[in-house]
Formats: sequence, structure tokens, C-alpha cells
Amino acid sequence: MLLYDMTSAMNPRRVRIFLAEKGLTIPTRQVDGLNRENLQPEFLSKNSLGKTPVLELDDGTLLTESIAICRYLEALHPEKPLFGRNALEQAQIEMWTRRIEFEIVMPIITNFRHTGQYWVGRVPQEPACGEFYHARALEAFEWLDRELVGKEFIAADHYTIADIVAQCGFLVGKATGTRIPPELKELTRWYSAMVARPTARA
Amino acid sequence: MLLYDMTSAMNPRRVRIFLAEKGLTIPTRQVDGLNRENLQPEFLSKNSLGKTPVLELDDGTLLTESIAICRYLEALHPEKPLFGRNALEQAQIEMWTRRIEFEIVMPIITNFRHTGQYWVGRVPQEPACGEFYHARALEAFEWLDRELVGKEFIAADHYTIADIVAQCGFLVGKATGTRIPPELKELTRWYSAMVARPTARA
Repeated sequence: MLLYDMTSAMNPRRVRIFLAEKGLTIPTRQVDGLNRENLQPEFLSKNSLGKTPVLELDDGTLLTESIAICRYLEALHPEKPLFGRNALEQAQIEMWTRRIEFEIVMPIITNFRHTGQYWVGRVPQEPACGEFYHARALEAFEWLDRELVGKEFIAADHYTIADIVAQCGFLVGKATGTRIPPELKELTRWYSAMVARPTARA
Repeated sequence: MLLYDMTSAMNPRRVRIFLAEKGLTIPTRQVDGLNRENLQPEFLSKNSLGKTPVLELDDGTLLTESIAICRYLEALHPEKPLFGRNALEQAQIEMWTRRIEFEIVMPIITNFRHTGQYWVGRVPQEPACGEFYHARALEAFEWLDRELVGKEFIAADHYTIADIVAQCGFLVGKATGTRIPPELKELTRWYSAMVARPTARA
């Protein structure tokens, strides 16, 4: 197995934290996003979308999409389940993972993509769209703050892939100006606990 | 079990097609989106996001998110697998489902949300954002057309949840002005085959 990683990017970080929580290591190759290695023919032959992470299996099979990669690794290494212990818990964790992706991560990322300096000259930008989703993200943060009352983790009574997806999204938000307002006490409490985990900087 | 459905909406359609492909029926209650029943306290107590579908289990447990609901139903009724027959195929199908959601469905829906008459007065709109994602959708259609060369289905050698997600997205696109250009022969071929399935209008 070989994992194509990009240290600075959000989606590979999900896989790195997942691996660290499982106590697994996989041979890794860094892809140089700053110099657009991900858009060169060699990498595009691995993922036609030019995105990381990519997991290359020993027979050459290629898997993209962080969550698909993590779920595949969970099937190979079921101990310390991060996708749930039974069908119902798996459904609840997937429900929360998707809610976090669409309500929280998507607006944070959309704002970054349309207003971030990193993307100038790399992708077309529409600043009005960035501002629109920055505001939507802050509304969603209030929703999640209400949902976290009485809950230590987002989706279950233990740490799951939903927490990983959320903490990686909030980390991008912190770096790109969509920050958790301190008056959102539940969300602040949850986020502080997540970034204090030994695996958070994997 | 009770399925909260909204006939006109995209995400409940995924579940209805999934059920029809499996030959399953579940008691259903229509939610009246036109009159905003989904934003009234009774429905918000089922899903705080005010979105359909919702699956209510006999013990009162609530599941939201179409894909989480379908995967849960697949665990209960594994025959005719639509999420894959083994760990690798499951990963490949999830990879494609996510690619379709983020690259194809998201821009179609974002255009509709920001430019569609249905949403005027319901949500804040930013037309520039709609136009931006309309153009991105058409680029993604070209990418998918290339990816479909030699393939009958999107993710595997049989019909899967990735096809369901895609066909429901393209149906919204067709109704909201983000149509498949006829020169995209592979995509046109695949879509024609999908909408010809007996379950397509479930």
C-alpha cells in the first residue's frame, strides 16, 4: 500500500488522524501541491480529479476520497472502530459525518476557495460566493453548538470519523477566517477536547 | 419504520429508488415542503435541519441523510447489494458516490438554490454564486463523460448507489437548467439507460 499525502491539505489529514487513532502506519508519498504536482499527468493518472489523498493498493488498484479510504482501512483493521460497532451506530455515524460535511465543512471550504490567497491564479474565484458561505458557516456553527449540549462526541459515545471530519474542517476554518465564536460554549468545549488529543496533529 | 418523504425533493428520491430496486416497501408520510411543514416544530423535532428524508425506527430512533438511511436498510436487507459485495467494491462505490456528490450534484444544487424561483423568499440567494457553480457543473459533466468510456455503470459492473445519486442529481439539473449537453455521448448514453429503468420514477 502507498498513501499519496499532502501535509497541508484537509482531506489527507483525515486519513492521517484515522491511522494514528488506529495505531497504523502506511508508506506515504508527499504530493507537492504548492508546485501543482497534483495537476501533472503522473498524478492525474492516479486521480483524474487531481486531489489527495489517494491510496494505491499492492495490485495497483487506486482508491480516492478520504472517507472511502478510511472505511476500507477499517474493514481491514476493525479494532477500535471509528465507523461504528453495529448497523445502527454505523448509520448514525454516517448521518453525522454527512451533516458535518455538508453543513460545516462545505461552507468553510467554499469561503476559503473563493477568498483565499492560496487559490488566486489556481482556480476561478467569486468573492461574493465566499462571503455568502462564510455567513452560512457561522449559522451552522450555532446549530452544531445546540446539538452538542450534553454530548462529548458528535455522533456516538466515543470518538468517531464524524469528529475527525469536523475537527479537520474547523482547523481549516481557523486558518482561513471562519472561526468558532467563543460564545458558542459547547462547540468550543468539544473543539478544545479534539485538538488536545495526541493524534490531532498527525 | 416510517419514512418521512417529500415527493418533489432530490434526496428522498434516492431512498425511493433504492427501495424499489430492492423490492422493499416502507410506510411513508409526505412532508409538505411547499407549505414549509419541514420547518415547523413537529418536523424539526425529527430533524433539526428541517430536511427530508428521515427514517423513524419503531423505537423512535431517527435517522437522517439519504445515504446513511440506504446503507442502514442495506444492512437489514443485504440481497441485491447496492453498496458493494466486499470491502474493496464497497470502497470503490463510496469513492464514486462521493465524487458524484461533490463534483456533479453539489454544483447543480448550488445553482438551483441561488437562481431557482422555488427558493425566492425561502433562503437567501446570491445569483453570482449560482452562475459560478452552473459553469463548474458543466465542466464536471465533461470529466464524467470521459470517465464513463467503456463503462455501463459509474462505480462497478452493476447498478449501485453511485448511479442512484447521479441520476437523481441530473434529474434536478434537467429541471433547473443545468442539462447534459448532447455532445457528451457517454454521459448521454449512461443517463438514457438510467432513466429507462423501471425504478427511475419511484
